[in-house]
Parts: sequence; C-alpha cells; structure tokens
Amino acid sequence: MRTVSIINITSYTALELVRLLAQHPEFRVVSVIGRSAVGKRLEEIFPHLRRLPPPSGQQTPGVDPALVITEEPAQTDLAFVCLPHAAAASAVERLIECGIKVVDLSADFRLHESEVYEEWYTHTHPAPALLKSAVYGLPERYREQVCHSQLVANPGCHSTAAILALTPALVAGIVGPNVIITSITGISGGGRTPALSYHYPEANEDAWAYSLAGHRHLPEIVQELEAAAATGGHPVEGGLRLTFVPHIAPMTRGILSTSYAELRADDQGHIPANEELYALYRDFYANESFVHVVDQAPHTKWTVGSNHCFLYPIVDKRTQRLIVVACLDNLVKGASGQAIQNANLLCGFPETLGLVGLGMVP
Amino acid sequence: MRTVSIINITSYTALELVRLLAQHPEFRVVSVIGRSAVGKRLEEIFPHLRRLPPPSGQQTPGVDPALVITEEPAQTDLAFVCLPHAAAASAVERLIECGIKVVDLSADFRLHESEVYEEWYTHTHPAPALLKSAVYGLPERYREQVCHSQLVANPGCHSTAAILALTPALVAGIVGPNVIITSITGISGGGRTPALSYHYPEANEDAWAYSLAGHRHLPEIVQELEAAAATGGHPVEGGLRLTFVPHIAPMTRGILSTSYAELRADDQGHIPANEELYALYRDFYANESFVHVVDQAPHTKWTVGSNHCFLYPIVDKRTQRLIVVACLDNLVKGASGQAIQNANLLCGFPETLGLVGLGMVP
Amino acid sequence: MRTVSIINITSYTALELVRLLAQHPEFRVVSVIGRSAVGKRLEEIFPHLRRLPPPSGQQTPGVDPALVITEEPAQTDLAFVCLPHAAAASAVERLIECGIKVVDLSADFRLHESEVYEEWYTHTHPAPALLKSAVYGLPERYREQVCHSQLVANPGCHSTAAILALTPALVAGIVGPNVIITSITGISGGGRTPALSYHYPEANEDAWAYSLAGHRHLPEIVQELEAAAATGGHPVEGGLRLTFVPHIAPMTRGILSTSYAELRADDQGHIPANEELYALYRDFYANESFVHVVDQAPHTKWTVGSNHCFLYPIVDKRTQRLIVVACLDNLVKGASGQAIQNANLLCGFPETLGLVGLGMVP
Amino acid sequence: MRTVSIINITSYTALELVRLLAQHPEFRVVSVIGRSAVGKRLEEIFPHLRRLPPPSGQQTPGVDPALVITEEPAQTDLAFVCLPHAAAASAVERLIECGIKVVDLSADFRLHESEVYEEWYTHTHPAPALLKSAVYGLPERYREQVCHSQLVANPGCHSTAAILALTPALVAGIVGPNVIITSITGISGGGRTPALSYHYPEANEDAWAYSLAGHRHLPEIVQELEAAAATGGHPVEGGLRLTFVPHIAPMTRGILSTSYAELRADDQGHIPANEELYALYRDFYANESFVHVVDQAPHTKWTVGSNHCFLYPIVDKRTQRLIVVACLDNLVKGASGQAIQNANLLCGFPETLGLVGLGMVP
Repeated sequence: MRTVSIINITSYTALELVRLLAQHPEFRVVSVIGRSAVGKRLEEIFPHLRRLPPPSGQQTPGVDPALVITEEPAQTDLAFVCLPHAAAASAVERLIECGIKVVDLSADFRLHESEVYEEWYTHTHPAPALLKSAVYGLPERYREQVCHSQLVANPGCHSTAAILALTPALVAGIVGPNVIITSITGISGGGRTPALSYHYPEANEDAWAYSLAGHRHLPEIVQELEAAAATGGHPVEGGLRLTFVPHIAPMTRGILSTSYAELRADDQGHIPANEELYALYRDFYANESFVHVVDQAPHTKWTVGSNHCFLYPIVDKRTQRLIVVACLDNLVKGASGQAIQNANLLCGFPETLGLVGLGMVP
Repeated sequence: MRTVSIINITSYTALELVRLLAQHPEFRVVSVIGRSAVGKRLEEIFPHLRRLPPPSGQQTPGVDPALVITEEPAQTDLAFVCLPHAAAASAVERLIECGIKVVDLSADFRLHESEVYEEWYTHTHPAPALLKSAVYGLPERYREQVCHSQLVANPGCHSTAAILALTPALVAGIVGPNVIITSITGISGGGRTPALSYHYPEANEDAWAYSLAGHRHLPEIVQELEAAAATGGHPVEGGLRLTFVPHIAPMTRGILSTSYAELRADDQGHIPANEELYALYRDFYANESFVHVVDQAPHTKWTVGSNHCFLYPIVDKRTQRLIVVACLDNLVKGASGQAIQNANLLCGFPETLGLVGLGMVP
Repeated sequence: MRTVSIINITSYTALELVRLLAQHPEFRVVSVIGRSAVGKRLEEIFPHLRRLPPPSGQQTPGVDPALVITEEPAQTDLAFVCLPHAAAASAVERLIECGIKVVDLSADFRLHESEVYEEWYTHTHPAPALLKSAVYGLPERYREQVCHSQLVANPGCHSTAAILALTPALVAGIVGPNVIITSITGISGGGRTPALSYHYPEANEDAWAYSLAGHRHLPEIVQELEAAAATGGHPVEGGLRLTFVPHIAPMTRGILSTSYAELRADDQGHIPANEELYALYRDFYANESFVHVVDQAPHTKWTVGSNHCFLYPIVDKRTQRLIVVACLDNLVKGASGQAIQNANLLCGFPETLGLVGLGMVP
Repeated sequence: MRTVSIINITSYTALELVRLLAQHPEFRVVSVIGRSAVGKRLEEIFPHLRRLPPPSGQQTPGVDPALVITEEPAQTDLAFVCLPHAAAASAVERLIECGIKVVDLSADFRLHESEVYEEWYTHTHPAPALLKSAVYGLPERYREQVCHSQLVANPGCHSTAAILALTPALVAGIVGPNVIITSITGISGGGRTPALSYHYPEANEDAWAYSLAGHRHLPEIVQELEAAAATGGHPVEGGLRLTFVPHIAPMTRGILSTSYAELRADDQGHIPANEELYALYRDFYANESFVHVVDQAPHTKWTVGSNHCFLYPIVDKRTQRLIVVACLDNLVKGASGQAIQNANLLCGFPETLGLVGLGMVP
C-alpha cells in the first residue's frame, strides 16, 4: 500500500482520481490539497461522497470522505498534481525535493524544450531543470522510462488520442509529413470553473470549433509523432506539417479524434490496403491492455468512465489517405486514468491495477 | 466462485449486469441467452467489449467477451432473468425446477396476489404457484428472507425509490394514507428497443408525463408501503390513497422521486420538526451501505453507475406535509445493481461485493 | 408602430424578446439598456445577430443589431423590464413617471400585498404605491384589466403553468383546498449568469429538486388560485393548502407542471368523469389562442420557441383526484412571449401579433 | 398566393416545411401525402399542431392542422418532395408531367451525371431525362437558373455547408486540389425512423464518425467545388482530392463543418493573410441574406431554427493551410429552409420571404 496526495482537489481531474482511487487496492489517498476549500471535508465539496461507508470488509478504503482539505501536501509516497500550468511546475519542484514521486497532469513537463514551452505558454518555465528527468507519460510508448522515473508528465487528452492514432503509421513509415487532426471533446475537458461558454443553456444543443489560431496540445503531438517516426527509422524531413483543430460537442465526456495523413507508396510502389493497415495496427498494440484496434467506427460512449481507447484505421481509397478514428474518455485515458496507469508503473504495480472497469453503456 | 447465466442478454438490464459482473470477484457469467442473437459472441452485439483482454493476473474474468449467445440457459448456480413480464415467469419456472437460484428482474413475482397481478398486467399469471415462495428483493426490507430464498423478485426502479423514501415514515406512523408520488426517470428505463418516443431528436430537449391512467409500479408501491405501515404497528386503515405519476426527462440514467404525504400529529398533538424527521430517517437506514440520508436536495448525477440511493426528507412547514426526495440510478439500484445485491445475499457473499463503485461525477 | 426599450439586455428574457420582436410588425426596439455592456453594439454581445441584414423590403426592422447599449433608457412608448426583483421596481417607478407603459418581467408587482412580498423577498418593497395599479399579466385571466393598464406584472414561468392548469377547476368549484404541484423546468429558467450548478458537465445528465423550503412562485400561485375560486363563487375556506416543488431537468427550455387536487362531489354526490372534466377545460379556454386542452399527455417539446401552452386534465380514478399536466416554454409563454402578448394588449394590437410561431419539433 | 403539396409528410424535412410554411405569407399547403398515414389529419400525427387556431385575422393560414393526408398529391402550383432517393425521382417525374414546379429534397437530381449517381446510389437512375433540366438548388450559386427552372434539386445538408465554405477560395484560385472536410451533424439529419444508433440512451453522451468508406454527399461536393474552380478560371487539374468524413454529435440540429485546404502562393509568391482572406469571403457573400462571414468561430446554436449560415475563414499560419468553419441548421439551410428559399425564387417571390427568423439562442 502506498500513500498518495492529490493537489488541487477542486478540479475535475482530481475528482476523477478520487472516483478511481476509491476502488484501487494499493493506493490510499491521505492528503488532499485545495486553496479554495481549506478546512472542509472532502464530502462537503463533493456531496455525492457524503456518508458513504468504507466498502464492507475493506480496512483501508482508498479514499475517506471525511478527509480534511489542507493548504500544503503531506509527505506521501506519490502525488498527483492537478494544478494549471505554471502553478503545477512550482508545486512539482517542491514535491520532487521531498523525494515524492509525481504524476503531473498539467502541461508543464510534457515538452522537452523550454523554448517551445515558452512559445506556447507565453511565460518562462518555472522549473526548467526538471525537464530532462521528466518522462512523457504515455505508457504505450515510454513504459520502461516511466518505471524508472520520479516525475511523469501526463499527456493531454487530445494528445493521447492523436498520438495513439498515428504512432503506428509513423513508426512504420507509411505516411508523409502532411497531417490534419480534427478532435471533438466533451465539455468536462474545459474544467470545473463555470463560464458562459459552458453554461448549460449555451452549451447544450451546440457545437463549435475553438483555438483555431493554435491549440496548446499541438506542440506535444508534433514532438511525439516526430519522435515516433524517428524511432521507426523514418524521421520526418522538414518536420511534421500538422494542423490540429479541436471542437466541442454537447456531452460531458469523450474524445473523438479523426486523423488524416497521406499514405506513401513503399519501394515497390505499394500502398497498404485496409487489411494490411489493420494488421499493422493490431500488431503494434497487441500487448496493450487499454488500446484496442477495431474494425468498425468506434463510439466515445464505449469508453465512458473507462481507461480504454479504441482505434479504427482505414484507407480512403479515392485519395490514398490514411484515416484513423480514435475514442477515449478525456477524464480517464485522457487524464486521471492514465495518471493512475503511470502511478502503477512508478510504484511497481501491475499497470492495470484499479483500472479494469468497462465503459458505461448506455 | 459461482456460475451465473443472464437471460435476455440484449436488454439494458442484462448489459448493465455484464458491466457490473465483469468486476465481481465471485460471480462468473458462463451462459448468456438471447433469442435474437443466438450464435453471436457477446462482443459482436456489444462492440465496446471487443478485444478486451482479461485484467492482468485475473484468471477468471467475470465476463468473457467471446462467450457465445445461446437459446437455452446452461445449468448454473444462479440466473438473472431480464425478460419482459409473462415470458419471465415461464423461464423462471423452468430454472427453479432445475434447482437454480433466480433473481427475476421482471414484475412477475413482485405482487403477492395473482388477482392484483392480473388486474394490472391483464393476463393470467403464468406461474402462480411460485408467488408464495418469491421474496420481494428490497434487501433493506427483506434481507433475511432473501438470504433463505431461491427466487427473488427484483423491485421496479420507480418502486425502489418510492418505497425507500416513504418506508421510515410509514413504519413510524407519522403520516396518513394520502400519498402522492411524482417520479422522473431517464430514458434507459424504457428499454433498449427503438421507438419514436425515444428517438433521439424527439426525446432530446423534451419532458413528459406518462401512464397517467395508472403505472404498473403503483400496486407494488402500495403493497410494500402498506406492509411497512403494518410492520410498524400503524396499519393504513382503508388502504393507501396513492397517486403515482412517472415523468421522463432527457437523460440516460437516473430516478428522481418526490413523495408527498400528510404528517399526523402524535398523541400530544406534535408534528415532527425537520431535525426529528432527519434523525428518524438516519436511524432507520443507519446500517445500510447503499441508502444515504442527506441534508440537502440530492442529484441523480450523484448516483450514476452506482448502487447508492440518496434520500432527503423535509417538512413543508406551511402545510405540515412530509416531502421526501429520492435519487438512484434506474439501471443499478433500480435494477441490475440491486439484482447483484440480492444475488450476493442468495449466495452468502457480503452484500456489497462488486458494488462499491461511486457515482460518476461529472 | 410603437417604440420599445428593453432594460437589462444581457438576460435571457431580454434576448428572447429580441428574437421575438425581430419579427413583430408593430414594435421597434430603439433602446437597449445594460450596465455591464454599455457602449457595445447588440451584435457584439450576441454574435448570432452579427451582420444580419434587415429582412428584404422591410423598412423598419424590429431590431437593429447595430443598436448601441446604453446605461439609461430612452423615452419610448413601452418598456420591457428584465431586471431582477427590487432593481426592477425602482426602474419601473421612473419609467411610469415618464408616462411609459411597462411590462415588468420581475416579481416586483405580482403580489398584491406588500407584506406577502416582503415575507418572501425579505426586503422592503421599493415602490409599494404602484402595487394597486399593477395588473397581473395573465391575459387569459385579466385581459380587460391589462388593456386599460399602464403597468403589467408578467407572471412567473412555473406560476403561468400552474395557474392555467388549475384555474378552470377552482372556478368551477370541483376541487378542495389540498393542492400539490410538481414542476419541472429547463435550465434557462435559472438565468444567464454562469454558476457551478448550471455548468454543463454538472447539469447534463442530472435532475434535482430545489427550493424545498419554499419557492417564490408559491405566493403568486396561491394568490391567483384563491382569486379564481372566489371568482367562481367557491372561495377556498381557510386558504389553499399548496405544496409546490420545482425540479430541474437537463434541457434548455420547457416547463412540465403536474398538479394534483382532491375532486369534490357536487350536491348530488357526483364526481366528474374524464369527459366532463375535459369538456369543462375545453369550454373554459375555448376562445384562447395560446391555451390548448388536449386528450393525451403533452410534451414540452411541442412548445419550444412558441407561446403555446398545452393542458391535459385527467381524473385519477383510484383516488378521485384531479391531475392536470401543463407544458409551455419557460422563456416564451413563461416570460417574453407572454410579455409581448401583454404589450400587444397594452397598445391595442391583436393579442397574437408576432406570436404565431409553432413549437420547434424536433 | 400559391398552393403547395408536401410529399412524404412523415419525414423531418416535411415537418420542418410545415413549421416554416405556417408563417409564410404566400404559400398555402393544400395537399399532404404520406403512405403510412393516409386518412389521418395532420394534427393526429403531429400532436403539437392540435387545436391550433388560425392566427387572428389571417384568412388563409399557411397550414391547416385538420388537413387530411392522402396517398396521391393534388394539382398544386408547387410540390416539395421529401421522399428518399429513387422513390423521389419517380414522384418528381409525375409531378413535372403535370406542370407542377418541384423542389426535390432528395439526392436524385443533384448529380449531373447519371453514371456518378449510379456509382454512389448503386441503382439505375429512375428518371435520367430530367437530369439536364434540374438545377442544383444552392441560390448563392445558381440563383438565376433556379428562377427559370421547373425542377430544383435541393442540396444535401453537409454539402451546403462545405460548398458555401470553400467556394470563395476555389473561385479565387487560392487553394490547391487537396481538401479534407470534417463535418459534425446533429441527429435529426438521420431522419425520423427509429433505429438503435439513434435510440436516446445510445446516442446521448456519444459521438462517432460514420460512412468512412465514402458518404453520398461527397460526389455533389466534388461536382460543385470543381465547378466553382472552373467558374473562377482556376479549374482543378486532375480533379479535387477530397476526403470527407461526417461525424454525429449528441444534439438534435446543427451542422458544424471544418474544411482544410492547401493555400497556394500567387504569381508573386504571396500567400493570403487573414485579413485578405476575410475580405475575400465578405466580398463574395456581400449581397447574401443568409450567408454571414464572421471573425470568430461560429456556433451551431446561432443557427437553430433559422436559415442562416455562418462562415469563419482563417489561415493556419504554421502550415499555410486554409481552414473554414461553417455552421447551419441541417433542417433549415441544410434542407427545408433552403427548399423554401428555392421555392420563393421559382415563384418570383422575394428570396427571404417567410425565412427571416433568427436562430433560437439559448
């Protein structure tokens, strides 16, 4: 059993950590931190936890609803940091100094180059010295590194979907540098702070595109897809030409990401057929517990509440383009579930521990 | 470990059993029955189960997605019957004859009197001989009887909310016979068969009342509330005068039930104050794992995907009426979760086994 | 043609007035007032109005999207006041002094007695002298008085549904004083200011009851139902014993109100049958353009965007209770549409002018 | 005043025609045809029309709710055909022979080449002789031809958005042949026939891509975009390389279409800046009543219930790609509203007659 703390408990990613950790057999939340709610019990700010008794026969419930929120974290084995960028880096620095393992759900340690970070986040990186030791926490790509790390940078939700969708094609060298990604997200991705855009009467029965001038998940997608291509021995000359446009649809959870890339003929002038593509993807993820390659268009609903990601690769025969549709729950595989997957690795537990729930259909 | 079968796998209650049993440590689904899908694998009709590997290190997954659907059930320790009324009774009869324990999710064995059944369901009861041995499967009321039974009649979703909401008041004798219950349900309560009323463009952004001439959950609510009053030594003279009107709101899951009754003065002419009422309810459910008395209006969202029920009793001071608001997930505490709670009791397992999940918020 | 101003343009009721008045042939919005948006053009705060040209051939568009928001209203023929209570009364007082006809959408002039107002709104009435001359703006009840008034108090959304639903029964004297009303509203009823309760991820897939200690629409319902009973020569002795509980469902618009009352036998001991009840209701509203008595349970969707209200009265045969289901759009017949209906009467126009749109189905 | 008939009244496009025509001053629906509902009155199948009286003082209501549904159309001035493809062509042939003007909402007369039609619709064209005289009913492109036609092929919903979004760029010759279009649609686009995919509990809180092997709106988009390029003197050499992927989001109405194309340098090596692009688009649609070029990402909600389309063109500076976001209501500008716009032109009425309603926000 390991003790954990959750920093910024009033966020949705923290709340989702609570839900998942409540059933985790090896993690015990002993410290919850939140400036705006110091002194309150967990069940006071999240009333659905009120009066829930410990599960019968379980001596150490994963989460105690009577836990009191504090301003500073206790010394624990591991900490989940759910702060916004910049604030996260400062908190991470102190936790690392205390010898605490950290899964940081912010963007602060995802980009390897502080220059790129500063271009996109428009402020100086608060803890650049830690960038080198941080691991990009996509276990399907960096499982070994995560196991031996102290600091994991948990990927963005759109990024997780996009990178899982295109990595097999880039590693195999079957696509060129022109990539377009359309991503649709549920509204919980926008966080827990009320705003007019997310006010129910505005957001219900509405869909819109946002961040058309450039979304901050773009540089981490570029970084990871270029790395994938290099890994496969097919580095992207001149760099990836990526256009990424996120959209919002009126639902609480879910990422539906559709990626388009130009298929390249191999040395014999051959373009992969659907079956070859499908086999390539299935083989690539054959040993993964959470990434499933399917032969029909997946639904975000399949993933609700679960850590599973579904991928559907297909050739657009008219244009010889690759299309990959990816689905996941933005709060689970796109955030808190993946954070626990990383925490399991950091602590030497089986990667799927506490994460075996199926999607909630209907 | 006990083997179980699920009869009528293409229903929502069956699908929810699959989701919950996939994480149950002691039940293993070995037989799934569905006329319209015979010969198909479970993952073919429910593609979100496709390619899900058994959780790492777990030798006997609760549910194998490759299980083939059959026409007739195998001999198992227990069966969940998800058929519509009438069809259910016939299936139950055969299962009981084979010595299989049964949790019947239909209405066929909920009413003690076959005459009442025939009045409301307008056909002869197919297996009246079993009515006597069947137990109404509300564990908070009939825990002992369920433990020693072979056939459990799982309550209706509206009924579970209404009965849990009013039982403490009727047992205590603090209310009279005039009762009105308004219940709001999510649309999954209407089942998995498409119909114009539940077609998304019709049902979205719509609310309506239904079954105004009399809903079939009414007689089981009357039966159980009158029984509660009698249990408490305050039998309802002349019978309960219950009006029950169900409504549909545009959401997938959730029951929000609001009950109104006339508070009665005691021998000293005293009407309970809010604090007394609250104490009465808290004491009544003090030892229950799934029923929680709270001091603010509960939300259906608190219960989504979980077996928890929240109750909020309050006095309407202007009129001296009792109001009780109840929330639960119609597919879990209102159907499949309660069915597993009953199955746990039938098999001698802890009542909460496999049912400790929290509500999914947001 | 009459000029109108809209006070507090950043509210949903004001926005709905803009939508409806844009097609009104006789009203022209020439002044829009909003403290938080002074100096901005209408199309800047409501971008869906941006660049909309005047309808072809129409010289005087009902609303000009380039209209600049001001701090104080201009002198117009009529003003719609969309301010919250208290602020509304002060504004109304100044408008009345300027000889402007006023439709006040707040609660400030709905209650005849300032003591009742002060009990429910917990502050001194800012303009008690105007209470006498104000008319409760339910045209189906007070058409003549509205025609000859300068100040109309537009009813609340829940109140409109409840009063239209029960007035025929109280006028006819067929029900007793025990009344229970359950009302379900869409979320736009809560206004345009973001709050956690109405944040999309919280409010989506959720339903809850609110104001259980007493909702402010209760006293106006009591006032109007008691008046209806007195009008019919059947005054409610001892006063109406009304319990009113509003609920929220996850939709943008719509009120679904279900009322319950005890039917009384007449002198011959006769209780009305469904046909008699239906005839009573149809006759009562026979000459109304916006109130429709139907013989099946109505849907809120039938009313979306329209000024229509549907009523379905039915006898609960088991208990001899009257049930009436009412549906309307809370922003139209429940607010801005009714305000225009009143404004038409105030100005001597046909009552239905600019209000003939059908409900948007689907 | 002109008489019109609506063929296949039980479809959503027909129902939307009824809603819009009910307020049209010059069209009168005198004949409604629907095989499955012959003999019923309009208000019986659409109960929200029940008992609606004619608007006060209007002698000839646009639609009479008591109209009886027939099997064959009457002789009218104009007919709206809402049948599925193939059935539509046969009906259109008979109507044209009777000298009736026709707006066909099906796909049967959208494609100029019967070979292309037969490739995509996999059956022989039922009335190829009419293809030549049919006009593609996008008034912003073919206004003059529509005015002088007898048969208008009303465009598809996705197609309308995509063609309006990219036409200015192709006419101006600023983009190359590589085009990717992602389109998100509300569920009413799938029609009124219930199916499991559109069953509320399945479709709510879900998003998915469909028709990945090729959607039938693709060939009409290609046809019209290639024609636009040719019109502008910049024919697409080798043909447009279009990938088009439609997605479904959980809402009733709305199309959100995002198009991507490669910007081409002009002879001076210049790539348009945002301001130039915006000016190009504004000028192109300067005289249009229903197409609005805006400088922020538009929302589908802005268009709900209205015939307006909003376009937002922007340069992706990193990749020199053009992005255009388009929003419209699939049932109005994407179907029935555009059909009335075409009918107005066919009959010599002002194009905007009966179509001036604003989007319903919220």
